[in-house]
Amino acid sequence: MGKVTIDYRDYFAETIQQMCTQGLLLVSADKDKKPNVMAIGWGMIGSIWSRPAFIVFVRPSRHTYGLLEEVGEFTVNVPPNELAEATTYCGTVSGRDHDKIKEKQFTLVPGRKVRVPIIQECIIHYECRLLHKNNVLADFLDKNFKSEVYPKGDFHRIYFGEILTAYADDEAVKELG
Amino acid sequence: MGKVTIDYRDYFAETIQQMCTQGLLLVSADKDKKPNVMAIGWGMIGSIWSRPAFIVFVRPSRHTYGLLEEVGEFTVNVPPNELAEATTYCGTVSGRDHDKIKEKQFTLVPGRKVRVPIIQECIIHYECRLLHKNNVLADFLDKNFKSEVYPKGDFHRIYFGEILTAYADDEAVKELG
Repeated sequence: MGKVTIDYRDYFAETIQQMCTQGLLLVSADKDKKPNVMAIGWGMIGSIWSRPAFIVFVRPSRHTYGLLEEVGEFTVNVPPNELAEATTYCGTVSGRDHDKIKEKQFTLVPGRKVRVPIIQECIIHYECRLLHKNNVLADFLDKNFKSEVYPKGDFHRIYFGEILTAYADDEAVKELG
Repeated sequence: MGKVTIDYRDYFAETIQQMCTQGLLLVSADKDKKPNVMAIGWGMIGSIWSRPAFIVFVRPSRHTYGLLEEVGEFTVNVPPNELAEATTYCGTVSGRDHDKIKEKQFTLVPGRKVRVPIIQECIIHYECRLLHKNNVLADFLDKNFKSEVYPKGDFHRIYFGEILTAYADDEAVKELG
């Protein structure tokens, strides 16, 4: 099954829907191209500085944080429903202690535009390079979230990625349906 | 023509497409409910802190900036193609010197969930309340943008709005097509 280039807006609803239910897979890599994968449940798609963009939120405590600081590129991969358990697993253990890619038998394929790979078994892919990053600021955050989401003060860094290319399995929507 | 409640993901492609071509209309208001409208060409839609969200970017020099700091609510309105000229005008003059709403004969209708009105003549509407705000940081920004977009150092403030409700004209897509 081939993966065809799409407009980054084509599968927004499906991407966000899957993100909010089972999660998406964010792949990053270190300078030596050693990759890591984490699950994300939050993210934004749109346009900023006249570029198509994907924003992801990563806590400084995460292994992915160090990798994004080292190599300013990432891919966001939308898993099909049959990867729900594997996706949950990727959100449960750290890449510091586990080779999640090996454990979950993900097939990595080189990115088309970035040095970070995609996960072949996923069905929609966004390749991104960093345009900007900033932080969630405690002083400017809805007060309910401060205690609920950040009891340890581990505020997210916000990574603004330019979507350099996006592509999907021919049958992506059917697989999600 | 009625406006029906939609899922915030339903018209993403149409909203972003219109944003990138003719612009969207961001409505804010001061404490006395005096509204202002500006045109925006950049924005992001997705989910953060498990809430549907719309991110908008506003420079401190803008009249809207002061209003958003005063009242943490806003609406994003998608204009039909016949409002292209009016939208451009709203991006050209300041609410400090012009009553753009009067000049362009926009009909304001009270928000369903926020104190800020929507523009009746627009066809898709997002009502938002502020969850968070932070800033574009010069030190963490792609260097090309620093000189091209911010020659005067007027870096955007980033407003993270929770989408409390979204609705659209029955015939929204036809009007955009």
